[in-house]
Amino acid sequence: MWRCANCHHVELAADRPNRCPVCGADAERLVPYEVTGVKGTKTLKNLKAGFIAESQAHLRNLAFAMKAEQEGYSHVARLFRAIAEAEAVHAFNHLRLLGAVSSTQENLESAFERENLASGAYPQFIREANEEDNTPIATVFSYSRDVERGHANLYKKALAHMMAERESDYYVCQVCGYVSDGVLPDQCPICGARKEKFRMVV
Amino acid sequence: MWRCANCHHVELAADRPNRCPVCGADAERLVPYEVTGVKGTKTLKNLKAGFIAESQAHLRNLAFAMKAEQEGYSHVARLFRAIAEAEAVHAFNHLRLLGAVSSTQENLESAFERENLASGAYPQFIREANEEDNTPIATVFSYSRDVERGHANLYKKALAHMMAERESDYYVCQVCGYVSDGVLPDQCPICGARKEKFRMVV
Repeated sequence: MWRCANCHHVELAADRPNRCPVCGADAERLVPYEVTGVKGTKTLKNLKAGFIAESQAHLRNLAFAMKAEQEGYSHVARLFRAIAEAEAVHAFNHLRLLGAVSSTQENLESAFERENLASGAYPQFIREANEEDNTPIATVFSYSRDVERGHANLYKKALAHMMAERESDYYVCQVCGYVSDGVLPDQCPICGARKEKFRMVV
Repeated sequence: MWRCANCHHVELAADRPNRCPVCGADAERLVPYEVTGVKGTKTLKNLKAGFIAESQAHLRNLAFAMKAEQEGYSHVARLFRAIAEAEAVHAFNHLRLLGAVSSTQENLESAFERENLASGAYPQFIREANEEDNTPIATVFSYSRDVERGHANLYKKALAHMMAERESDYYVCQVCGYVSDGVLPDQCPICGARKEKFRMVV
């Protein structure tokens, strides 16, 4: 992060911009800035709360955009997408101020750890949904559990080959979130969806 | 939502698909499905927890992808984007099972209500950041407060003109999330960023 010595704007980008995006001051007027001393403060709690709320608002707006497209309101869909993007800007700002974006290697390591935690929560969710006779919801939870395990493997592989100039296409199943590395499958190995349900990520 | 009478797959799409995406059964085998009787259950609590966790994972992965691009690891960036999309699929599934995606009119109304709640939380965040001498963080919170107010107005306008075939481009400030309706501003009215910091949403 960079603080402009001229206008006091805080630029959250990791790399020093060529000039201050607000007042236009030259790069040398942008001095490195770190958030320090927030441990245990209300500010830290609020940054986390902000990140959680903005993340949810982002996804909710994207879901509303899809619904608006289905209903033929493409202009409303575009508004929902625009506001989803704005919420993402806020979420990124909060995340960077929390110091949660590190080097790529560290990000891969922490993403790997988190996936293991995530897939660990789903078995209980599945059991409870079954106990409460919500079998279809248990099925959706089991998709997530299986898919998260696959993500952990992909992060691990990426860590091992980080320095390789490896070019791979990824295909994401829009039913269960399964990520296929390099191959468009005929059928999703997790939920069984057909190949038309996959989307390539660029 | 639709349940396949053939393979029991639950399709979360609002519109009935032409055939079951899993077993390929004809459309008439897909019967309407509603999640009922989850009020007060652990399943409901778990669906909400799942949505919150997946939303955060989605945004975290997108932030990691930007960082990987900056560091020149474009293949790792693509992996982060693919997994971000997978987390979004999970978040959408949970959201739909929660019954949180209604008609576009209702979605606009609930989005409007939520924005008012969101901008209402920021004044306290700003005050507390200032009290704790975290002025730059207070500034970032104030961006969010001002921007959320603008969102509420955009939703209101969209509600009033929902039936109009209004085509508008939206430009989103990548510094503070300000959404400009139809005009690329020379300078962001919220944070002062220059026009190069705006991205058009399609």
